[in-house]
Amino acid sequence: MAFIVDVGQEFPRGLEGVIACKSAISAIDGEEGLLIYRGIPIEVLAEKSTFEETSYLILFGELPKKDELENFKKDLKENAPLSDDELSFMKSDSIPKTAHPMDVLRTMVSLLGVADKSIGTDPIDIKTERLKKIIAKIPTIIGAFHRIREGKEPVAPSDELPHAANFLYMMRGEKPGEEEARIFDIALILHIDHGMNASTFSGMVTASSLSDMYSAITSAIGTLKGPLHGGANERVLAMLEEIGEPEKAEEYVKNALAQKKKIMGFGHRVYKAYDPRARILKGFAKKLAYEKGFGKLFEIAEKVEEAMIKNLSHKGIFPNVDFYSGIVYSALGIPKDLFTPIFAMARVSGWAAHIIEYLHENRIFRPRAIYNGPIEKEYVPLEMR
Amino acid sequence: MAFIVDVGQEFPRGLEGVIACKSAISAIDGEEGLLIYRGIPIEVLAEKSTFEETSYLILFGELPKKDELENFKKDLKENAPLSDDELSFMKSDSIPKTAHPMDVLRTMVSLLGVADKSIGTDPIDIKTERLKKIIAKIPTIIGAFHRIREGKEPVAPSDELPHAANFLYMMRGEKPGEEEARIFDIALILHIDHGMNASTFSGMVTASSLSDMYSAITSAIGTLKGPLHGGANERVLAMLEEIGEPEKAEEYVKNALAQKKKIMGFGHRVYKAYDPRARILKGFAKKLAYEKGFGKLFEIAEKVEEAMIKNLSHKGIFPNVDFYSGIVYSALGIPKDLFTPIFAMARVSGWAAHIIEYLHENRIFRPRAIYNGPIEKEYVPLEMR
Repeated sequence: MAFIVDVGQEFPRGLEGVIACKSAISAIDGEEGLLIYRGIPIEVLAEKSTFEETSYLILFGELPKKDELENFKKDLKENAPLSDDELSFMKSDSIPKTAHPMDVLRTMVSLLGVADKSIGTDPIDIKTERLKKIIAKIPTIIGAFHRIREGKEPVAPSDELPHAANFLYMMRGEKPGEEEARIFDIALILHIDHGMNASTFSGMVTASSLSDMYSAITSAIGTLKGPLHGGANERVLAMLEEIGEPEKAEEYVKNALAQKKKIMGFGHRVYKAYDPRARILKGFAKKLAYEKGFGKLFEIAEKVEEAMIKNLSHKGIFPNVDFYSGIVYSALGIPKDLFTPIFAMARVSGWAAHIIEYLHENRIFRPRAIYNGPIEKEYVPLEMR
Repeated sequence: MAFIVDVGQEFPRGLEGVIACKSAISAIDGEEGLLIYRGIPIEVLAEKSTFEETSYLILFGELPKKDELENFKKDLKENAPLSDDELSFMKSDSIPKTAHPMDVLRTMVSLLGVADKSIGTDPIDIKTERLKKIIAKIPTIIGAFHRIREGKEPVAPSDELPHAANFLYMMRGEKPGEEEARIFDIALILHIDHGMNASTFSGMVTASSLSDMYSAITSAIGTLKGPLHGGANERVLAMLEEIGEPEKAEEYVKNALAQKKKIMGFGHRVYKAYDPRARILKGFAKKLAYEKGFGKLFEIAEKVEEAMIKNLSHKGIFPNVDFYSGIVYSALGIPKDLFTPIFAMARVSGWAAHIIEYLHENRIFRPRAIYNGPIEKEYVPLEMR
């Protein structure tokens, strides 16, 4: 017999350290705290680039020339509006106002695939039209759902505003200030890609059966939803609010560590140094927090960071990207439960890039399990059980 | 620097042979052609069990006692109907009549999660109420979509019929004969679980972020959709129809092999012997085919099998589960594009079982990629590109 049975084999849980593929999209140096997109350091892109340009870079491998960038922006603009059917479905009783925005986003992206007639003719489905449609519509879906649940009319995407500013506009119904828009643009850049994270990997697994881009992105959204992944910054903010005062931060951390409770927003399977995205976001968090009346929240965060670094930096535990992003988003007037959808809004470019790259030399993902159940069991008839 | 760069590392593509977890649900002996569910051989279950009983076995690890089985059946019955909102959405223009049924199923299961108010309070989400809801509603969704696209009213689930018969009833609008219903029941049993396949794995990856059962099953449905996975039996049937006559089968196989074309329904990453599920289905295919006027299709299939075994059995390539299931389904009057949804109808029990099992000792799936892109690249300003 050749069942693969449990004889005490060791294996890395969660596939830690296991190589799933080669990739030229982004790389992380966890020891030095470096992140590059297609070879360019994240700090340079945060300073000089835009979401649209970095999205193009991640997707296609090179910074766009002027006309390429214009066309890419035009494609996103043209694809941003939702259809009347889509909007009336979002307003209907099928989508309760209390629904989790990630559940709504997952369903709406899946629904985009239902209506796309080009699917099925091209199972490998690496056509970029389709992914531009998904990238373009995600902010519109999130903005529309937020307006609808507040009892307001959805705001149609603007023809003029860049991707990041446009989301703030659709969410608020008013155009954002230039500085706010730019900070949000940078926050999106910082979230566009991050190697083989769980959501990216789930999209690749789905695509590896040669399903389609909508299926793959739908999987990635569902995966990102989890509190161990995209949900972390929401929980960081809840923790900061719970602490309530800067002077209570140190004791909170001490108690939590004594009880072996996990402090959200710290540590990362790859980074054993300060997360470079956290460093950039911390600056913006500080700036915006004091301008928008979130100064105390920022001070609590700083104290938590101080206490954590004092206690745990020798173990390579530092703030990660989720620790300061929540303060930035709050200061931008974004409700907590939209933090993860915003993450999706940025990361969708990375998801699509990895899926396209993997499909070029596709092999379906089919790992193995070690069987640790019974080998021979009798079928006892119902009346004798 | 410590980027993980490409220095020619070897790694198993598609994670072949890589251990992802331990599991007590099902095991495959690829050399001997054996498949067991919780220790019981598939042949025994096909002979003696029912979909409901085997689903319970797969989910909970033991054959149900009489009252457990009755309660499980009752739960499935109670959860089977769709709400008025769900049905009117399915009838609306949002779901074109020409949509791929797997896209519809993926979207509807995702939508079930939108409306479920219990989500969010329990992120780990291994409550069985939720998964019973999903298992119960999948046949209703598929049946309703099929009726609607044919311009007919959906048929509400029967209070009396077992799970398998009930699907045939909701699809056709008429109760199936006993023999047909039993054969379909067995076909579902044979598809309930199969270790770490891509769809199961994608569901586990999604669940490993502690997302929720709806997200995880939605991912699995999207993955199953792909032609390298659930879509294979649809393509087998198309091939048999293309061959057209039994006497043309041998030449077709020869030509295909000479052109190195893949013949669908043969070979499996794990089985290097006759797939035990194919053996069982072949018997039913033969029986039903002659009764229902699909005799020629069966004869073509037999000739293809003969030619393939002559040419490739020394390489361990034999018919797999997909080779004869299409003939069985066709003889049951099921249209080709519902074959994969039916696969989902059965496999959902296996998906849920693996997800629940993994979550008991969860670790988020985060493999690594080897970076083979540029390490240092300059940011050239737009005007200089």
